[in-house]
Amino acid sequence: MLNRIHVIGSGRAGSAIGAQLRERGLEVTDTDPELVLLCVPDTAIAEVAAGIEPGPWVAHVSGATPLAALDPHTRRFSVHPLQTFTLGRGPEQLDGAWAAVTGESDEGLEVGFWLAETLGLQAFELDDEARTLYHAGAVFASNYIVTLQRAATLLFEAAGAPSEALDPLMVRTIENDFELTGPISRGDWDTVAAHKAAIHAELPELDDLYATLAEATLELAT
Amino acid sequence: MLNRIHVIGSGRAGSAIGAQLRERGLEVTDTDPELVLLCVPDTAIAEVAAGIEPGPWVAHVSGATPLAALDPHTRRFSVHPLQTFTLGRGPEQLDGAWAAVTGESDEGLEVGFWLAETLGLQAFELDDEARTLYHAGAVFASNYIVTLQRAATLLFEAAGAPSEALDPLMVRTIENDFELTGPISRGDWDTVAAHKAAIHAELPELDDLYATLAEATLELAT
Repeated sequence: MLNRIHVIGSGRAGSAIGAQLRERGLEVTDTDPELVLLCVPDTAIAEVAAGIEPGPWVAHVSGATPLAALDPHTRRFSVHPLQTFTLGRGPEQLDGAWAAVTGESDEGLEVGFWLAETLGLQAFELDDEARTLYHAGAVFASNYIVTLQRAATLLFEAAGAPSEALDPLMVRTIENDFELTGPISRGDWDTVAAHKAAIHAELPELDDLYATLAEATLELAT
Repeated sequence: MLNRIHVIGSGRAGSAIGAQLRERGLEVTDTDPELVLLCVPDTAIAEVAAGIEPGPWVAHVSGATPLAALDPHTRRFSVHPLQTFTLGRGPEQLDGAWAAVTGESDEGLEVGFWLAETLGLQAFELDDEARTLYHAGAVFASNYIVTLQRAATLLFEAAGAPSEALDPLMVRTIENDFELTGPISRGDWDTVAAHKAAIHAELPELDDLYATLAEATLELAT
């Protein structure tokens, strides 16, 4: 559909995206591009977009940023790869992830879906107005898993248990389609009370986190 | 080391454990057992243990329950497989998981380590007094991941995004060694404030959960 793409930004996402486009045989170039793809920090998108000569398609890969940040361009869209990226991996980290595509015209959506699929992503359409809720969901699913692992690691260290033992447990919880097991699933509030007392005695900085999650688990997962 | 094991209880864990022992060539029998292995609910352990004729080793597989629940038996230990089990899988769900082994004597620990390894588990020793902290850590790492996924799913549904798109993101977060990305890692508090406002408008029941996790992420993961 397009051949020449100018990728601006070479951070975690931009590096993987640029490399994947090259692997798929596209020309990644700043000469006469048909699409300028902004892989810059969210806070820089509006300024960088404003500096681009109108003409080519202009798109960003941010989950949180509305399309209006791409003003004054009107041939615009967004493809947000729903994935966490690390510089330690290559373009293969895009493979199999999903992507939210946002556009304002049939043509914009068409180019957005084409780009997502070219990147190896499974595309779905996302309304521009819905992206804040969507992005908050992604934060729960990715960033807050990190927080759970940190809290669990503190507790394991206090108990003298190896924190790497948590990994197979966390992976299997996902593989088992998030089937809730453990004390709250059994209504075993004595065990929950014992956890709270032990946490309060050893790691009181986790008191609120444990209690809030216990209550949310009862409300959302039982 | 031992040949005849009586497994009491055939729930999620007991089914997998009994099947694995049989697969490893052990005799799972209630006739003259050398070990009685209690795979019953935590709240039933003390009563079931009290009804067993003293003589054989007696052990439980609970993460939260102290060895004292096995009174009056003194040849006792505990092996807690650090895994979430489902009836939809077989004994292979033990393979590669870790296990906390608790004992009160060298011989008890030796039998406990033997049992864990026979079950395909990677054993580590856990003090009896440390098990509440340890078990609270396991709850963070398994049960509370379910809660995060439920919250993320509610937000995705409100945004019109497919919740199955969350799975590759969650798995990769683990595979990337829990490297924090996203707005909090970038100090992007405008995005965090936008999430809070959008959640409050659409799903206010998630207000406290989001805010508590954001604060904990800043404290524990940055």
